[in-house]
Amino acid sequence: MGKYCFGIDVGGTTVKLGLFDVSGNVLDKWEIPTVTANKGSAILPDIAESVLQKMEDKNIKKIDIAGVGIGVPGPVESSGMVHRAANLGWDTNFNIKNDLENLIGIPVKAGNDANIAALGEMWKGGGQGHKNLVAVTLGTGVGGGIIVNGTILTGAIGAAGEIGHIHIEDNETEKCGCGNYGCLEEYTSATGIVRLANRILDACDTSSVLRNGEVTSKTVFDAVKTGDEVAMEIADQFGKYLGKGLAIIASVLNPEIFVIGGGVSKAGDVILKYIDKYYKTYVFHGSKDVLFTLATLGNDAGIYGAAKLVIE
Amino acid sequence: MGKYCFGIDVGGTTVKLGLFDVSGNVLDKWEIPTVTANKGSAILPDIAESVLQKMEDKNIKKIDIAGVGIGVPGPVESSGMVHRAANLGWDTNFNIKNDLENLIGIPVKAGNDANIAALGEMWKGGGQGHKNLVAVTLGTGVGGGIIVNGTILTGAIGAAGEIGHIHIEDNETEKCGCGNYGCLEEYTSATGIVRLANRILDACDTSSVLRNGEVTSKTVFDAVKTGDEVAMEIADQFGKYLGKGLAIIASVLNPEIFVIGGGVSKAGDVILKYIDKYYKTYVFHGSKDVLFTLATLGNDAGIYGAAKLVIE
Repeated sequence: MGKYCFGIDVGGTTVKLGLFDVSGNVLDKWEIPTVTANKGSAILPDIAESVLQKMEDKNIKKIDIAGVGIGVPGPVESSGMVHRAANLGWDTNFNIKNDLENLIGIPVKAGNDANIAALGEMWKGGGQGHKNLVAVTLGTGVGGGIIVNGTILTGAIGAAGEIGHIHIEDNETEKCGCGNYGCLEEYTSATGIVRLANRILDACDTSSVLRNGEVTSKTVFDAVKTGDEVAMEIADQFGKYLGKGLAIIASVLNPEIFVIGGGVSKAGDVILKYIDKYYKTYVFHGSKDVLFTLATLGNDAGIYGAAKLVIE
Repeated sequence: MGKYCFGIDVGGTTVKLGLFDVSGNVLDKWEIPTVTANKGSAILPDIAESVLQKMEDKNIKKIDIAGVGIGVPGPVESSGMVHRAANLGWDTNFNIKNDLENLIGIPVKAGNDANIAALGEMWKGGGQGHKNLVAVTLGTGVGGGIIVNGTILTGAIGAAGEIGHIHIEDNETEKCGCGNYGCLEEYTSATGIVRLANRILDACDTSSVLRNGEVTSKTVFDAVKTGDEVAMEIADQFGKYLGKGLAIIASVLNPEIFVIGGGVSKAGDVILKYIDKYYKTYVFHGSKDVLFTLATLGNDAGIYGAAKLVIE
């Protein structure tokens, strides 16, 4: 087995790449732009060129490489079949594993980016020491990655872990990006928190520092820390939706731990307090002791997880 | 590897036992009483005696037995550790695999009964041909079993698949058996359907055959088939809760198929029609094509699944 591997995380604007040793130490880390023009046809050739160039620069031979792991924003079957990835311009189904192997001549494994980030957090992040975890990414949307016995739960067509789109509110009149109404994402993503905040601010005239500037998930939780009453009500609503949603997920999966990441999680432990209160209310007793922690790898979770894909 | 195996399903009143060949043909099937007195201390010795007696009757040697699979009504870790099983009188944690192996001198594997029934339905029942499925048992309560890549999803402490206790209704004043409010089981188990029925009957004075006799899940769906308006409203409410619940589960797991069993499912395909309508409304698009079917093994799902546990 090779001494090195590559972990690659393909995003809508940049591709993050990492060169790792097989113990999981990152030796080099860089980015290239994601060229989505022409249906994203340059993305894989650009990645192949960058990987092969790095090997030449470092004088690493193919025989020394255990493999290349790659995560993409869309459903990916365990075979490597990608079911479109709208953010990348990919509008057809194709096998990314086969195509990238043909370009670089090194074994490739592929997966969905949220699932792979979960694997990264298990390996080197907040979930270390656990084999059954759910990673929750609270960013522009809400993503999820499920790890069962150390392996990604992919689902029938790579669509497992779409926890941002579990139905959580019957009385919602605004449509979610997915086309449904009342998805978890509508209340607990960074943009969802702003929606909640504006609704609550509009419905009362209690004074709040949030009335003085731009409302973001950061300003909301900053205000919570100063004891702002309206901000605390917003945080409570956020915690109710997320605590309820994670309680449902725990009753299904009985994980060891939830690892909470994404931009919203930068507010720190304060968010766990609000989640926990409602989690305990709604969860089945067999899963009441599931742990909660914050993600620690930030934007690097994807390259770590992608590297882990090819290391067993 | 041996030519035969035993599949055992321990219930609160009877223990079902099956002798199988390793292709999954049942060669013999029988029951013994479950003696729950004295904290259920006789249950495993009674099972061991029955298994050993059967081997003597059939002139089968230990070397010919691939193993003994056993399902119990409670959380079971993959190690065989049982976390109490109140219906059996077992009030402490112990390793059922080790204890039963010591009694019979044959390798044992153990699991939760609902999970094992799911494995049985995958192997020889409604889920044949699929490796990722969720079995839903609509009986006195609502149980679930999750199979991922052909293997039971056990969870951290054996509490995965408790889908009867996902929170589905915020406005519920009656407590579920688990201590929470608004669990899926409160609306979709046999007893839950009767509750729904009585609420709907009490809230209107529309004529209905259901006003003339005992209301059970069977009489409700029988009345649906005759076009009874109130019964159809009850079935619609049932379908809304279950369709919504299964949509949430599908967004998390992205299974290939749901296999619906238990007493309620004896009403037949009519229940799938009511589930499907709401499932499609609430599910994330990546899981909209998940299949639905009825379980076919009935009360034998447990012995089939238990046998499958020890055959790979």
